[in-house]
Amino acid sequence: MQKLTIFLFLFTSAIHSQSNDKQMLADIYKLSLTNSQCYSWLDYLSNKIGQRISGSVGAEKGVAYTKQQLETLGLDKVYLQEVMVPKWVRGEKETAFILDDKNKTAVPICALGGSIATSKNGLTAEIIEIHSLKELETLAPEKIKGKIVFYNRPFKADNVDAFESYGGCVDQRFYGAEKAAKAGAIGTIVRSMGFRLDDFPHTGMQSYGDLAKDKYIPTAAISTNGAELLSKKLKDNPKLKFYMKLSCQSYDDVLSYNVVGEITGSEHPEKIMIVGGHLDSWDLADGSHDDGAGVVQSMEVLEIFKKLNYKPKNTIRAILFMNEEFGGKGGRKYEELSKKNKENHIFALESDAGGFSPRGFNFECDAANFEKVMNWKHLFEPYLIHSFKIGGTGSDIGHLTSAKIVKAGLTPDSQRYFDYHHAANDKFDAVNKRELELGAATMASLMYLFDQYGID
Amino acid sequence: MQKLTIFLFLFTSAIHSQSNDKQMLADIYKLSLTNSQCYSWLDYLSNKIGQRISGSVGAEKGVAYTKQQLETLGLDKVYLQEVMVPKWVRGEKETAFILDDKNKTAVPICALGGSIATSKNGLTAEIIEIHSLKELETLAPEKIKGKIVFYNRPFKADNVDAFESYGGCVDQRFYGAEKAAKAGAIGTIVRSMGFRLDDFPHTGMQSYGDLAKDKYIPTAAISTNGAELLSKKLKDNPKLKFYMKLSCQSYDDVLSYNVVGEITGSEHPEKIMIVGGHLDSWDLADGSHDDGAGVVQSMEVLEIFKKLNYKPKNTIRAILFMNEEFGGKGGRKYEELSKKNKENHIFALESDAGGFSPRGFNFECDAANFEKVMNWKHLFEPYLIHSFKIGGTGSDIGHLTSAKIVKAGLTPDSQRYFDYHHAANDKFDAVNKRELELGAATMASLMYLFDQYGID
Repeated sequence: MQKLTIFLFLFTSAIHSQSNDKQMLADIYKLSLTNSQCYSWLDYLSNKIGQRISGSVGAEKGVAYTKQQLETLGLDKVYLQEVMVPKWVRGEKETAFILDDKNKTAVPICALGGSIATSKNGLTAEIIEIHSLKELETLAPEKIKGKIVFYNRPFKADNVDAFESYGGCVDQRFYGAEKAAKAGAIGTIVRSMGFRLDDFPHTGMQSYGDLAKDKYIPTAAISTNGAELLSKKLKDNPKLKFYMKLSCQSYDDVLSYNVVGEITGSEHPEKIMIVGGHLDSWDLADGSHDDGAGVVQSMEVLEIFKKLNYKPKNTIRAILFMNEEFGGKGGRKYEELSKKNKENHIFALESDAGGFSPRGFNFECDAANFEKVMNWKHLFEPYLIHSFKIGGTGSDIGHLTSAKIVKAGLTPDSQRYFDYHHAANDKFDAVNKRELELGAATMASLMYLFDQYGID
Repeated sequence: MQKLTIFLFLFTSAIHSQSNDKQMLADIYKLSLTNSQCYSWLDYLSNKIGQRISGSVGAEKGVAYTKQQLETLGLDKVYLQEVMVPKWVRGEKETAFILDDKNKTAVPICALGGSIATSKNGLTAEIIEIHSLKELETLAPEKIKGKIVFYNRPFKADNVDAFESYGGCVDQRFYGAEKAAKAGAIGTIVRSMGFRLDDFPHTGMQSYGDLAKDKYIPTAAISTNGAELLSKKLKDNPKLKFYMKLSCQSYDDVLSYNVVGEITGSEHPEKIMIVGGHLDSWDLADGSHDDGAGVVQSMEVLEIFKKLNYKPKNTIRAILFMNEEFGGKGGRKYEELSKKNKENHIFALESDAGGFSPRGFNFECDAANFEKVMNWKHLFEPYLIHSFKIGGTGSDIGHLTSAKIVKAGLTPDSQRYFDYHHAANDKFDAVNKRELELGAATMASLMYLFDQYGID
């Protein structure tokens, strides 16, 4: 062909592709909003199964249910990956009181994940309020010794991205007990991770680090209203005492599973694109946002492709990871097996930021691939998806370390996420059907585009 | 000055302005998220005052409270504008039953605004399901005569913008009774305006049009679950009957008020920029989203400018309109007075689409002004405000007809709006503090930019 003809051919092909892509995204969004199962799957996971902390009966029911549902979709493979996971049980509901002279004021607390119990009679001690791990280091040992340390640095309100505020506070929860124990404290209380002033304590992972087991101390979160009250009362009476009783206990690791469903690639079956969320939740509620939403959206990506009769070029695999909240064993096991099987992952997408209105994606990739994504941006505009950024994607796909891989994380609207995160109100009624479905469609659209055009 | 010098001067000024604007927006958002009153104002309006249907005690309490709060802000003027408004009272809670052979099934209904009552014993009749006003015209008269007409066209689920689905259905609610009465029906039931399947009937305005008063028929909304049930039962038994009892009543118009607060312009006091929402609500709940949110956000714009010590060039006026829901008398009165006083409005911004995460604005303006706005788009990106479109703005500012005016409407995320709109669950706990504050900051930012750069 002459140059002009070649140019015209390529130009026409490009126009044709663009119009195909536009139509495909329209089909994906329409199907998700009118004829998808993700909301009813989430209903079942939340209301029929409920909490799915790893090692629990709920988690195993979640495995069985999602596997069985994936088997109805006509996929090429559905299977489980065995993984040993930690088991920690909260036991009896926690109690706590502020003991101020003759007054005894109940405040809502919950043990943090992995905490040891107090003695059966509970723990009573003076309590000292601090605002950072650094402040702990500056205090004279006698200020800490034999006391409970109360970490009370609140979320920074003027971040637009709520996750930035979480990132700025969560060290108190994660490292607080270890650091306080090393300074001689006998327990810690941490202000719940959230903006809102309410009565829900938010649990979450903590680590005793390299502490010897006999040095572990009980550690719990207090609701934001409880934290405000405690702080106020401490200002009036720094000598007041705090009582807490935790009954939680750790057990030996138990067998659990990642759930996997896949459509084999029609052109490059050896090239693997994954989409996932985590099947385990915390134990205080149903984990509808964290991460029931990500689980059913990942399943939905497969349902959409099957219902649209789309034959992906590459293998598309949905993975419902186990134990993200409590050690990340499922993500690590997946990476271990994929290395062992010499699998070639080109793309990984995670949804683990709630089922709220999708706003865009974060990407971990090089400049060439990001430029590629930015060229697709206009395709998403009709669906109000505008935010395409380089940034953190997700902890389960974080373990994947293939030489060349593009990673993405769905970024839903973040404002409400920490009203529910790891707390007793993370329930089905906090999820809006359309927001969930729009998220699933947004994920399927990005999967489609990477499947069509590959990575650079 | 030489050309190059002039160019450099202008170029440097432009850079300087851009950096000033960037800083001003940062200050606005920070203040709104950390030190604003809009959420506590909304708490009071919702939880201390409650429903504010025009002509009610609640509406008058709303007028008094917001005026008093505006008076604390150090504005140049705070005043009321008298306006006569319709008064309609729901009376006793409505009842309705599906009467199917010997079974009597209660379904949730609520009278539509302006409906007449049924007789004291209620109304019992056969009921015919239809899906559009057009379908009504195609039916033989004997199919309608003496029956209740049941409009059951649901929201179209595949629109991304929820307001499009509302626009595609609301004719059933607004014109349904008039058209059915003309066809010989004795009552109407309308499927509630919303996507979600739930038990909340949604009220709203309806009009009897040019019907003679003695031809009016009672008209009510049924919850979406109720509509689904009724439709299913009608398929099984087209001869079943429907019972409804409404006790609502219209009264003579009563005196009420728009509430106005303003900061006088420092350079062009005669050029007026307005920001507003409506103070009245429907009577079934507290109107926290519709439109308590728009009211407190409009007040917040003034609070932000005062707290930042910003001296606007033009006069900035917040208007809390009365009676948007039920005739729009407040908006019309405002326009009437502004014409009488020969006021020059250059810009009008309305917030009446809920207190959800702001996504952008709709504009009614010419191409030159829209281009101007698009040049400011990058300033909003750090706050995830991306959607700038030509489109409908708001009904209260809709009455303004100055020769040269730019109109804008805040467009929050629309997915959840119709879960609450005009229903008993439109309460304070459905509003997220940060989403409300981000909306107010977004409004203040646009007001600031138009104040700085004027309209073309």
